[in-house]
Amino acid sequence: MKLTDRLYEEVKDIWKGYLTQTFVKELGEGTLGEDRFRFYMVQDYCYLLQYAKVFALGIVKAEEEPLMRRFASMVHDTLDGEMDVHKIYMKRLGITNEEIASAKIALANQSYTSYMLDIAYKGDILDVLVAVLSCAWSYQMIGEHLRTIPGALEHPLYGEWVSGYSSEAYIQSVKDIMDAVDEIGADISPKKEVYIKEIMRKCSLYERDFWEMAYHMDMGD
Amino acid sequence: MKLTDRLYEEVKDIWKGYLTQTFVKELGEGTLGEDRFRFYMVQDYCYLLQYAKVFALGIVKAEEEPLMRRFASMVHDTLDGEMDVHKIYMKRLGITNEEIASAKIALANQSYTSYMLDIAYKGDILDVLVAVLSCAWSYQMIGEHLRTIPGALEHPLYGEWVSGYSSEAYIQSVKDIMDAVDEIGADISPKKEVYIKEIMRKCSLYERDFWEMAYHMDMGD
Amino acid sequence: MKLTDRLYEEVKDIWKGYLTQTFVKELGEGTLGEDRFRFYMVQDYCYLLQYAKVFALGIVKAEEEPLMRRFASMVHDTLDGEMDVHKIYMKRLGITNEEIASAKIALANQSYTSYMLDIAYKGDILDVLVAVLSCAWSYQMIGEHLRTIPGALEHPLYGEWVSGYSSEAYIQSVKDIMDAVDEIGADISPKKEVYIKEIMRKCSLYERDFWEMAYHMDMGD
Amino acid sequence: MKLTDRLYEEVKDIWKGYLTQTFVKELGEGTLGEDRFRFYMVQDYCYLLQYAKVFALGIVKAEEEPLMRRFASMVHDTLDGEMDVHKIYMKRLGITNEEIASAKIALANQSYTSYMLDIAYKGDILDVLVAVLSCAWSYQMIGEHLRTIPGALEHPLYGEWVSGYSSEAYIQSVKDIMDAVDEIGADISPKKEVYIKEIMRKCSLYERDFWEMAYHMDMGD
Repeated sequence: MKLTDRLYEEVKDIWKGYLTQTFVKELGEGTLGEDRFRFYMVQDYCYLLQYAKVFALGIVKAEEEPLMRRFASMVHDTLDGEMDVHKIYMKRLGITNEEIASAKIALANQSYTSYMLDIAYKGDILDVLVAVLSCAWSYQMIGEHLRTIPGALEHPLYGEWVSGYSSEAYIQSVKDIMDAVDEIGADISPKKEVYIKEIMRKCSLYERDFWEMAYHMDMGD
Repeated sequence: MKLTDRLYEEVKDIWKGYLTQTFVKELGEGTLGEDRFRFYMVQDYCYLLQYAKVFALGIVKAEEEPLMRRFASMVHDTLDGEMDVHKIYMKRLGITNEEIASAKIALANQSYTSYMLDIAYKGDILDVLVAVLSCAWSYQMIGEHLRTIPGALEHPLYGEWVSGYSSEAYIQSVKDIMDAVDEIGADISPKKEVYIKEIMRKCSLYERDFWEMAYHMDMGD
Repeated sequence: MKLTDRLYEEVKDIWKGYLTQTFVKELGEGTLGEDRFRFYMVQDYCYLLQYAKVFALGIVKAEEEPLMRRFASMVHDTLDGEMDVHKIYMKRLGITNEEIASAKIALANQSYTSYMLDIAYKGDILDVLVAVLSCAWSYQMIGEHLRTIPGALEHPLYGEWVSGYSSEAYIQSVKDIMDAVDEIGADISPKKEVYIKEIMRKCSLYERDFWEMAYHMDMGD
Repeated sequence: MKLTDRLYEEVKDIWKGYLTQTFVKELGEGTLGEDRFRFYMVQDYCYLLQYAKVFALGIVKAEEEPLMRRFASMVHDTLDGEMDVHKIYMKRLGITNEEIASAKIALANQSYTSYMLDIAYKGDILDVLVAVLSCAWSYQMIGEHLRTIPGALEHPLYGEWVSGYSSEAYIQSVKDIMDAVDEIGADISPKKEVYIKEIMRKCSLYERDFWEMAYHMDMGD
């Protein structure tokens, strides 16, 4: 069993729960209130900025050029790929540039991203990769699940989200991270495996709390 | 108005709320369930380990010897002072060394400590100091408030906690941090002040969530 | 006087010295031994990998998206721009991919890059920018000086180096860094200015030692 | 063969060379110029401040309390033990507190300490320990060698230096680091061993350059 498979075993129950969380369910059914989606979009924008920093720490921790380049691509994919999709969405939702530039990060969002950064600062490349894996991979799972719901792909507001996170390009970007985890983590010690499983588990719990935060538009203060 | 006074203005409403949170209230009245206090003690032990790391980053960021020594003392006060008080308590509560060594940090606790470490890793000395200030200072406020409750200081289990966090030695250790904040932050720009007020506010919110976590013995999973 | 002008005053004497260092002189006159240039190229490759890490730390330290993007571009310019020029050169010099992948960094090179990284890890964005400025800017000065030497631009081996570092594209990339320094460092305190002048001075001394290392093909062991 | 023994094999030739470097030789023979020793003392003071930061990063990287405490002790030993010896010496040499507080670090010293900090920032606990090992251990070797020279221990100025670095207390503090290296590095992969041997080798080369710098009182500018 590959390392990513073993990591998946650790969190599959938490991930299954995402599909029944109100935000995700209503997104798939097309009944999600636009204000909730709007809140989510702004918070996800704040999230991506921090997410890009985690990848940037990967550049710093990598010892060889090819791996440095992979992390540099991930920074680019985040700041110029995923972020651009967000900007289009935000425009459609009437979110102005000023609103984006002055957006405040919610406490649950801060907790999640500070955790990833804490891990990345003190850890090694494998830690960095596992820290970003839960978000990237579970979004693919959610995207692939939602696209099977009749009408989800055609929804005027949410269809693009569903198709984006189940697109070939997105799946490839997740596969890049997974391949890196399996390669670099090929011969880890049992103690190290326990450590990174804990990272995987904590990030998955933070994902769950992020969806909850989004539905309740909860800034945490 | 000193910088610490201005920081206090930012969070005083959040801090007032601590005194009415169930954990703090029942601790002062002596009615807090022992299992809750036990949970709190183990989590606070996990917290202090991370708290010591924040101070250690202060040693790294300090440019001059006297300031490096101050941070080294704070590491020492945390690992050998506050920690020892915890160990005595934990013994009384029947918490074994094995239990302590294998203790898992709760999610709300992880969020708080990762946030402080994230700030400390990327920031400067003033950021490090402000990150630890909310915890240190609000404990003094709680200790001083609880000691005015008749019987609180004499309580067989919680009296020592109350007297510890309202003791002269503890108040002096908080004053050391406050003095450092006022000294180092004497001439900061308005932009920097906005930034550290946000650190102060977030840490205060995390304190609130910590008390809530403790009362509900909530591991967050 | 702009901050970059004040920084220049601090190091102009050291920089003037570069033009009379044997490596630079012989490069301009076209008499530099190919083995020395080969040694330089491999070491400069090692240097650029670490240089990219300094920019990556800029992404981590930046608080706002536009600045994060600027640092991400600088990582890209280094890994995909300057690096590609190096690869073409290295091919012409008969340096194989295996040789590059197993290249060892010389001690003087390690000293310089570890210093920049030390500054970047513990410092703020301005520190990061000033750390990379000496290298970027003094190369432009050297390139512009050498191109005035008759025949330097037409030299079969070194002409491309001279034209590259005096090209409009390169000058623009240096200007981007300089503009960022002047913007972000607009209102610094006198104490901070002393601190970054010391970074500028040390990096300029390390540049000088780098040219010396290159000429003597000195691994430092 | 223990890991520390294997690390020693890597650097023993470099270390042997220390004993014939002019500074060390003249220190043992008692003929070293006082101005050179004075220069060395001030630079070693600057060195110890950075050395303490490397240990502080050990506190940050350690996952368990006992190891955190060990690093905290090493910070303490450096700032309050070795440093105090230096202060007594500096007083005897007529170095004023103002001179110490405004001392500038020489370039070779900066190179060495920035290298250790670069390794410590990006690496794990074992990297941190190996980074400090060359300095600590080779000083013991030098101390033990010099004390066999007739009259070295009785020298009015240098005797105390010789006895200090060959004392039981000092040897024990080196042993603490060595034991930690052997414990934590017990089951490392061959790739990791190559990596830390390189750290050991580079630090040993920086030690050599430090002695050279001291003898020539070379600020590097």
